[in-house]
Amino acid sequence: MNYKMMGRFLAQILAIEGLFMIPALAISLFSGESMAVRAFLLTIGIIILLVAVLYLVCRGAPSVFRAREGLVCVGLCWIALSLVGCLPFYLSREIPSYIDSFFEIVSGFTTTGASILKDVEALSNGILYWRSFSHWLGGMGVLVFLLAFTSEKGQGFTMHLLRAESPGPDVGKLVPKMRNTAAILYLIYVALTAANILLLVIGGMPLLEAVCTAFGTAGTGGFGIKNDSLASYSPYLQNVTTVFMMLFGVNFSCYYLLLIRRWTTVFRDEELRLYLGIILGSIVLIILDTRDLYGTLEETIRHAAFQVSSIITTTGYTTTDYDLWPSFSKTILLCLMVIGACAGSTGGGLKVARLLLLFKTLRRNIRQMLQPRRVELVRNNGHTVDQKVLDNTNAYLAAYMIILFSIFTIISLDGFSIETNLSATLCTFNNIGPGMAAVGPTCNFSGYSPLSKLVLSWGMLAGRLEIFPMLVLFSKSTRKRR
Amino acid sequence: MNYKMMGRFLAQILAIEGLFMIPALAISLFSGESMAVRAFLLTIGIIILLVAVLYLVCRGAPSVFRAREGLVCVGLCWIALSLVGCLPFYLSREIPSYIDSFFEIVSGFTTTGASILKDVEALSNGILYWRSFSHWLGGMGVLVFLLAFTSEKGQGFTMHLLRAESPGPDVGKLVPKMRNTAAILYLIYVALTAANILLLVIGGMPLLEAVCTAFGTAGTGGFGIKNDSLASYSPYLQNVTTVFMMLFGVNFSCYYLLLIRRWTTVFRDEELRLYLGIILGSIVLIILDTRDLYGTLEETIRHAAFQVSSIITTTGYTTTDYDLWPSFSKTILLCLMVIGACAGSTGGGLKVARLLLLFKTLRRNIRQMLQPRRVELVRNNGHTVDQKVLDNTNAYLAAYMIILFSIFTIISLDGFSIETNLSATLCTFNNIGPGMAAVGPTCNFSGYSPLSKLVLSWGMLAGRLEIFPMLVLFSKSTRKRR
Repeated sequence: MNYKMMGRFLAQILAIEGLFMIPALAISLFSGESMAVRAFLLTIGIIILLVAVLYLVCRGAPSVFRAREGLVCVGLCWIALSLVGCLPFYLSREIPSYIDSFFEIVSGFTTTGASILKDVEALSNGILYWRSFSHWLGGMGVLVFLLAFTSEKGQGFTMHLLRAESPGPDVGKLVPKMRNTAAILYLIYVALTAANILLLVIGGMPLLEAVCTAFGTAGTGGFGIKNDSLASYSPYLQNVTTVFMMLFGVNFSCYYLLLIRRWTTVFRDEELRLYLGIILGSIVLIILDTRDLYGTLEETIRHAAFQVSSIITTTGYTTTDYDLWPSFSKTILLCLMVIGACAGSTGGGLKVARLLLLFKTLRRNIRQMLQPRRVELVRNNGHTVDQKVLDNTNAYLAAYMIILFSIFTIISLDGFSIETNLSATLCTFNNIGPGMAAVGPTCNFSGYSPLSKLVLSWGMLAGRLEIFPMLVLFSKSTRKRR
Repeated sequence: MNYKMMGRFLAQILAIEGLFMIPALAISLFSGESMAVRAFLLTIGIIILLVAVLYLVCRGAPSVFRAREGLVCVGLCWIALSLVGCLPFYLSREIPSYIDSFFEIVSGFTTTGASILKDVEALSNGILYWRSFSHWLGGMGVLVFLLAFTSEKGQGFTMHLLRAESPGPDVGKLVPKMRNTAAILYLIYVALTAANILLLVIGGMPLLEAVCTAFGTAGTGGFGIKNDSLASYSPYLQNVTTVFMMLFGVNFSCYYLLLIRRWTTVFRDEELRLYLGIILGSIVLIILDTRDLYGTLEETIRHAAFQVSSIITTTGYTTTDYDLWPSFSKTILLCLMVIGACAGSTGGGLKVARLLLLFKTLRRNIRQMLQPRRVELVRNNGHTVDQKVLDNTNAYLAAYMIILFSIFTIISLDGFSIETNLSATLCTFNNIGPGMAAVGPTCNFSGYSPLSKLVLSWGMLAGRLEIFPMLVLFSKSTRKRR
């Protein structure tokens, strides 16, 4: 293992985290929040110390960087980012327990949005901003950011890291250089976020609230700034958020293709079509099922569209207590939680692209069972899918199931109901946020034991990094030399 | 499609079902139950008519029989067996609705053991016997029975059918001729069942009760003859049942290997070791978790062992209301429900062998991710596993998940809680029987709508036949000519 290079890389990542804390510090200063100012200054000091030590220790690193180092590096970086990123919460005493602070920032970086806070409105402005900004940074990936805007590290290095950090079964290159691909993705991300902030401000939302809400939407995170999430905002603001959640759940390559005017490629994209189809179908079914709950048809449609869009993109904002909906609608939401958004978006879950591949391999296997001598290939958007991608998709599903049941079993030690534990597991592992029953939209995760909070934090990281970087940390083969 | 040959085959299967109704008819006659006698006679008459018509229509069938015909044939035979097999329930008016009768017999043949009956003790002796016998027949498979004890049909034919009807990822041949393999399996099955009946009668159980209980144990079905399942029987009878449930969950090939004295092969069998390890681990964890619930340690151990053995083999007998256990124990049971018994046993679920293969492919994929240039093979008991078996295991898992969520969503229309619906889905699809919450051990499935009952019946058949024969019936490729 090339530990020195990993150390240098970690130092750069932490430096970026420190830089990004400066706006939060400024907001705290401006709002006159002395405890928060102290906490941010202390944290930045700790970061400077860590970066200096890492640079000194890791001088003269060899430049060979292999696939397994990419995987391990991504896992370690995210853990380090969280261990340091939660310090402002803890040092400002706005979250008194370190484990709770860790859970909260992991939930932020992984764009989960599950909270241990009972009263969000009591937080200071600087801390609120940092909490929401963690969604924005985690959504597109902080390593991707580093790759996009710092010096070139060699093709293999960039590719391995981007592969390990980006969601979805396969990373497509938009342009020949991976570095430029990363930069293009980030620019689209910034532009969409800016548009979202603008439309919220036009609707009358105060600037800081608009920025925080847009960060949560862009990262498909879901940390709200009000205790009732978005329920008290105007229908216009809710509808704007519905549309933007949906947009941030789309594969970002589609936006690049739109920019270079390849309309038909986007229009024919099988994943996009399935994604939109699932959203539309779910909205219609939920409208039919909940039509008696709300006063007007407009209200029914608005709540159905908002919740579907929020759950399938794994954002987790709410405008109504869906825990009171009939079983059928709740079950549809549970299914959407598992499916998740498109590959290459900021959303979590299994990903629509994987669902598509699973259906296609299933169809191929049934055909081959019926006609054993025929050779069938799996195709996606007209191209043959490599057997390796299929193998990985299947391994992913297996790992997904095994981890799901493991987390579910461990947290059941705390004695909550099966429904609560299942939805807590699904909501953290799929990076959604609020769940159902005792962890439903009106409630939170503060009741779980420290062990469960750590397990759920690990689950959030595993969900965000698509499992393998977090599994590899425990694999014996990682430490083995060739 | 070779419809004529399928028709002839169906006729033979129905004829066997008719023959097996004669003991039930005799018991009804002996007990003086006139309505049941009438129902059995009517059903046998209908069977004779159907068989005669099928034989006349399907004369001169070509003898070519392909894989897809095997799959379709198995699916259709099981549906036909159930449509006819439920007639005694319906015609005797002991179950007034035809859909309920169909659900009950499907639950019997698929060895599920889920019931719509609120008062089992009100049933007549003949009907009780037929209900329990359906478990015994379904456990090893009625088509396998036909293959074992009637004339040879050609190697391909036998193989295709046995593959489609037998549980587990791969059917191993014990002896060169498949037909002899089937016969050996059935003889072991009969011998074990006889031993079970004997030990129950020694413990003081009346003969008919012992026969019915042993049928439910052998088929890992779980239809009880008392409303409280086995709770009111003596500890000895409960312990005998615990041991036999565990034995019927073992791959039957192991017993054959023991018979021909290949001790070490059995001892080293990876699936068997994992199966026993899971059972032992679960019992220990549940004893620790429920130690305060029962008066003595003996009682705690007995209930824990019985429930674990009953759930992992997907039998579904109960001696205590495990719905009152703490969350952790209930969660362990939920996980065991999904895992299921060994491949090649009468038990249902995903199968321990598949779990083992999933873990192994996962490990292989992680290793390949770490060292992309290395070629890794999956090994089982020292032999390399064919990529085709791995593909099928993965396709199975994908189909399993998709069907699970589909059934779960459809039955949620009835408005029961998420926990009830989830456990109803798991319990029928994995062929377990009683579930948790509203379908828990003290309750049953009578509250569901007719649509849900049909969907759950389809799920039970899909679970028993390992999904594909029931999926293939809906596949367009099945009807396509080459």
